[in-house]
Amino acid sequence: MNYMLKDENAIYYECGYSCDNALYLSLGSEAFFITDSRYTIEAQQGVKGAKVVIDGDLYGSAVKLLKKAKVKKVVFDPKEWSVAGFEKVTSQCKVTFKAELDLSHKKRIIKSDEELKILAKAAKLGAKAFKSLAKEFSKNGFGKNEYDLTHTAKSVLGGFGKYELSFDPIVAVNANAAKPHAMPTKNRLNKGDLLLVDAGLKYKRYCSDRTRTVEAGKDFKFNTKQTFKRKKIQKAYDTVLKAHDHAIAKARSGMKAKKVDALTRDIITKAGFGEYYVHSTGHGVGLDIHEMPYISTRSDTIIEDGMVYTIEPGIYIPDEFGIRIEDMVAMVDGKAVVL
Amino acid sequence: MNYMLKDENAIYYECGYSCDNALYLSLGSEAFFITDSRYTIEAQQGVKGAKVVIDGDLYGSAVKLLKKAKVKKVVFDPKEWSVAGFEKVTSQCKVTFKAELDLSHKKRIIKSDEELKILAKAAKLGAKAFKSLAKEFSKNGFGKNEYDLTHTAKSVLGGFGKYELSFDPIVAVNANAAKPHAMPTKNRLNKGDLLLVDAGLKYKRYCSDRTRTVEAGKDFKFNTKQTFKRKKIQKAYDTVLKAHDHAIAKARSGMKAKKVDALTRDIITKAGFGEYYVHSTGHGVGLDIHEMPYISTRSDTIIEDGMVYTIEPGIYIPDEFGIRIEDMVAMVDGKAVVL
Repeated sequence: MNYMLKDENAIYYECGYSCDNALYLSLGSEAFFITDSRYTIEAQQGVKGAKVVIDGDLYGSAVKLLKKAKVKKVVFDPKEWSVAGFEKVTSQCKVTFKAELDLSHKKRIIKSDEELKILAKAAKLGAKAFKSLAKEFSKNGFGKNEYDLTHTAKSVLGGFGKYELSFDPIVAVNANAAKPHAMPTKNRLNKGDLLLVDAGLKYKRYCSDRTRTVEAGKDFKFNTKQTFKRKKIQKAYDTVLKAHDHAIAKARSGMKAKKVDALTRDIITKAGFGEYYVHSTGHGVGLDIHEMPYISTRSDTIIEDGMVYTIEPGIYIPDEFGIRIEDMVAMVDGKAVVL
Repeated sequence: MNYMLKDENAIYYECGYSCDNALYLSLGSEAFFITDSRYTIEAQQGVKGAKVVIDGDLYGSAVKLLKKAKVKKVVFDPKEWSVAGFEKVTSQCKVTFKAELDLSHKKRIIKSDEELKILAKAAKLGAKAFKSLAKEFSKNGFGKNEYDLTHTAKSVLGGFGKYELSFDPIVAVNANAAKPHAMPTKNRLNKGDLLLVDAGLKYKRYCSDRTRTVEAGKDFKFNTKQTFKRKKIQKAYDTVLKAHDHAIAKARSGMKAKKVDALTRDIITKAGFGEYYVHSTGHGVGLDIHEMPYISTRSDTIIEDGMVYTIEPGIYIPDEFGIRIEDMVAMVDGKAVVL
């Protein structure tokens, strides 16, 4: 199959190097990595299994290579390409360009042993950072608002400059945690408040992703075992934790993704919180923070060994509180192993 | 003119609100802001002059609105739209879609008085952050590597969580500064080293951008007046500063952008450093960090009052050192005023 890639992570997956201005062509037995002269040295050192082409006009260079290779059909992912970039390539070639959605994500859905090791390490570093963050918040977090707390979370998760982040962390207090994608506010954290943290870091470009919800008392920890003063919160928390643990225990290779979703959803629905569980059970994680498989009510994807995804059920009571507990799992020997 | 926008800043410019999942349609006398239910409250509070439409299927919603409005031609910027998104809209409408590159950037090239005030404030906050950063580096920076220094720069420029950054700061020591887009390395900063910092923050979504190059001694400051021990560096520095000051003094409304570029380039070329000045004089700054006008050797754009752009000449001696001095200017009453 001949194909062309534009997305940075899609290209990295092919050849072990990428940058923010590159194209990748796989044409018959040859592959080409095209970038501009700013990246000459890094590309020549980093790219494996593809010829490095340095050209300020990336698209023009791609056209030349396509013409020279005399291929008839080239596959591309229409989500990766801008209309402008795509036109530059296709308007000058007599080649059939065939759209295939999620071209690279489909290739990446089963992780190699090497990728599994990296993802496990990313998850481990992420978990360690949560421990440090709990200590830091216990010591200096009370009285700070969500902007300050988010900044601290960024610093700690990022190892004070050592790691990139998987995404901007979510640090939400009490009612703000009821928004699954909460933006920081001037809400301050006080002792006894509910605190939700959703954050991850990148290790060798692979993402970690983790969420914990706690009652922030003296020396609190981001464990999954938590005690809340308000009974309603405790009931919701216990339900989410039960759903989380149940899905991890019962997920099997060979199941459809929607069956895994049902493992969390059924428990939350039976407990009477169904309408407050407003998102899917999880998503694949790899070079991108959101990848295949998607663990949703509608996904017919068959879960297989080597897939890595999150289990992250939640209950969100508007204007009151939100709870989410998230871990990454890898499918190994038919079962889900927490990373 | 009927048009449709996808870019977050392009949409913000139209209606004073935006988010990471939105479409904007301007159809005759009506305008529509389409987003999903996560942003209902914020959109209804923030969007001005457009009807808020909440629909998980953004593209499907756009198709319905286009059909209902019965317009014949809609303009779009092919850089903003993915092939997939564009297809979703256009494959279902009997409307002529006309590509216009930089549609929104062209509208935004002249800043309003309100925008000029915000950009001036952003630049002022950026300058203040450079002062704090010099103090911090003088005190705790020596012995740290570029990763650590970059992390500190992020924290200080971001006001420890108060502001977003215009871009990831560049903090480069000695030879690494010879790369205009240097990535951090494990190079450590020692007393007497050349240090280049290029950084900016966002105020009310508008970007600041500033570069200083210094010899990092005890209590150093990010002033433009700098003394270097090595004569070659001093000569290059003085040349860059002269080019920078000359362009700011002589830039006039009515000039072509390439004439402004020549104001810096001629001085650097005459001093014998022409081949080491490997980029353009500057770029417009606004909601995006890179906007029109582009101050390059090939730009025929006529500079006008209300434009805001950077003046950032540089000299880069490979494997030795790099120097860049950058300020933002606004064209006011025919002349360039440093923000």
